[in-house]
Amino acid sequence: MKQIFTFPIRIYWEDTDAGGIVFYANYLKFFERARTEWLRALGIGQQDLKTQSGGMFVVSETQVKHFAPARLDDLIDVTAQSLEIGRATLLLQQQAWLSSPGGVRTLLAQASIRIGWVDSHTLKPGRIPATILKALQ
Amino acid sequence: MKQIFTFPIRIYWEDTDAGGIVFYANYLKFFERARTEWLRALGIGQQDLKTQSGGMFVVSETQVKHFAPARLDDLIDVTAQSLEIGRATLLLQQQAWLSSPGGVRTLLAQASIRIGWVDSHTLKPGRIPATILKALQ
Amino acid sequence: MKQIFTFPIRIYWEDTDAGGIVFYANYLKFFERARTEWLRALGIGQQDLKTQSGGMFVVSETQVKHFAPARLDDLIDVTAQSLEIGRATLLLQQQAWLSSPGGVRTLLAQASIRIGWVDSHTLKPGRIPATILKALQ
Amino acid sequence: MKQIFTFPIRIYWEDTDAGGIVFYANYLKFFERARTEWLRALGIGQQDLKTQSGGMFVVSETQVKHFAPARLDDLIDVTAQSLEIGRATLLLQQQAWLSSPGGVRTLLAQASIRIGWVDSHTLKPGRIPATILKALQ
Repeated sequence: MKQIFTFPIRIYWEDTDAGGIVFYANYLKFFERARTEWLRALGIGQQDLKTQSGGMFVVSETQVKHFAPARLDDLIDVTAQSLEIGRATLLLQQQAWLSSPGGVRTLLAQASIRIGWVDSHTLKPGRIPATILKALQ
Repeated sequence: MKQIFTFPIRIYWEDTDAGGIVFYANYLKFFERARTEWLRALGIGQQDLKTQSGGMFVVSETQVKHFAPARLDDLIDVTAQSLEIGRATLLLQQQAWLSSPGGVRTLLAQASIRIGWVDSHTLKPGRIPATILKALQ
Repeated sequence: MKQIFTFPIRIYWEDTDAGGIVFYANYLKFFERARTEWLRALGIGQQDLKTQSGGMFVVSETQVKHFAPARLDDLIDVTAQSLEIGRATLLLQQQAWLSSPGGVRTLLAQASIRIGWVDSHTLKPGRIPATILKALQ
Repeated sequence: MKQIFTFPIRIYWEDTDAGGIVFYANYLKFFERARTEWLRALGIGQQDLKTQSGGMFVVSETQVKHFAPARLDDLIDVTAQSLEIGRATLLLQQQAWLSSPGGVRTLLAQASIRIGWVDSHTLKPGRIPATILKALQ
């Protein structure tokens, strides 16, 4: 059974633009924060990985649909969920939700993110370490 | 015949991350700078539009594939090209290229960006002003 | 007696640069997040303020000294403390600290931030609302 | 005689915040872009330096005063000028100016930036390479 990880993110001035709403490109940052905390919850620290394995994750493809805006001071919920776990890449689905006082939840944005694994120095693609794959499954 | 607009962008410290390369989310910023300059070259200023028409463009969907990394001090070429021009949304294709001294060009990233038009205050979708559609065609 | 507010901030990829450390300009973002949470803890929400009073805080002066770097995955503590509370401006002192496993705390950066109050539309300086001054004292 | 280097920077959506103006922390990015282009004009490329000398500049102190806001689509002029050139640190003065159609120039922000030199791996302070000091004088 697939599990969905959720991480709360607060909207600050830095996240907004002159349209009065969150700058769309910043959702990629929010999705990455949630992914990072999801990995951390699974016992995977990326700085440690880089130091120990000499490799790191890189994002190879992103697809984001924006449905509704978030604003300054909003507290949004950002999810992470694995769709495919391969030996070379991972495919994740991520969503950003806004909860209103009355209990209504609005989907702000939804993303598919493909992540690969590379050597930190050469940046050449490699296989995701077995310890990570095991933690993800 | 479709024309391709190209805009040069320099990579600074602010654009990089601890992987030693450009942070992937920043390509969305580069694509937007190129789109903005493409619109400006067509006589469309977004601040003026917001003031005069009470409307503004919003990005509703982005899809980006990353093929190769750029690094600090690189000078990349970012393109903008319209794929579809509708009354409510535009679909653009954009690319980021790196030119090497020997004349080799490397495709760093390619994107499809869908843009809609909204009222600046209500953020409700509306029709793209005729003056913009005319400039784009 | 002056009280010091502390807010924990995690370092993500977005915060780092190709030097392998946190990009110095991002400390201003961290300081603002901590200020915002400090104000929120005092019952002051900035989006509500903007809507209700028609005014907002703007930063008029920043001074930041950097002593040591933070890195990906670090969890730092960011403080906020008022030094001067005037009718037109506030002066805050803020610090960023890194705690090591052995219990050693390292001062990463220290800032003085001066904040003024302006009308949201005209951007002209005005007096800080009495409700805010009361909450701060 | 001290010379002042000037570099034009366009304001994009990414630079603004929900106040409708440029987010203050982004001036540090603008100042760095102008510094980088100033160094480049003097024949100093930072990526090359990092590769060849094993060292890099780091910002140790910033002081910025904000006088007036810039907005979306503005084209501002950002300056760089050396105030002190030491063996371990440089002190620069930098300004951001907005020119209006009528010929009036407005000072948006002014900064003092202190820069040191460190080993890229250990991050320990060192002496600025003689080739750089020579180019700066």
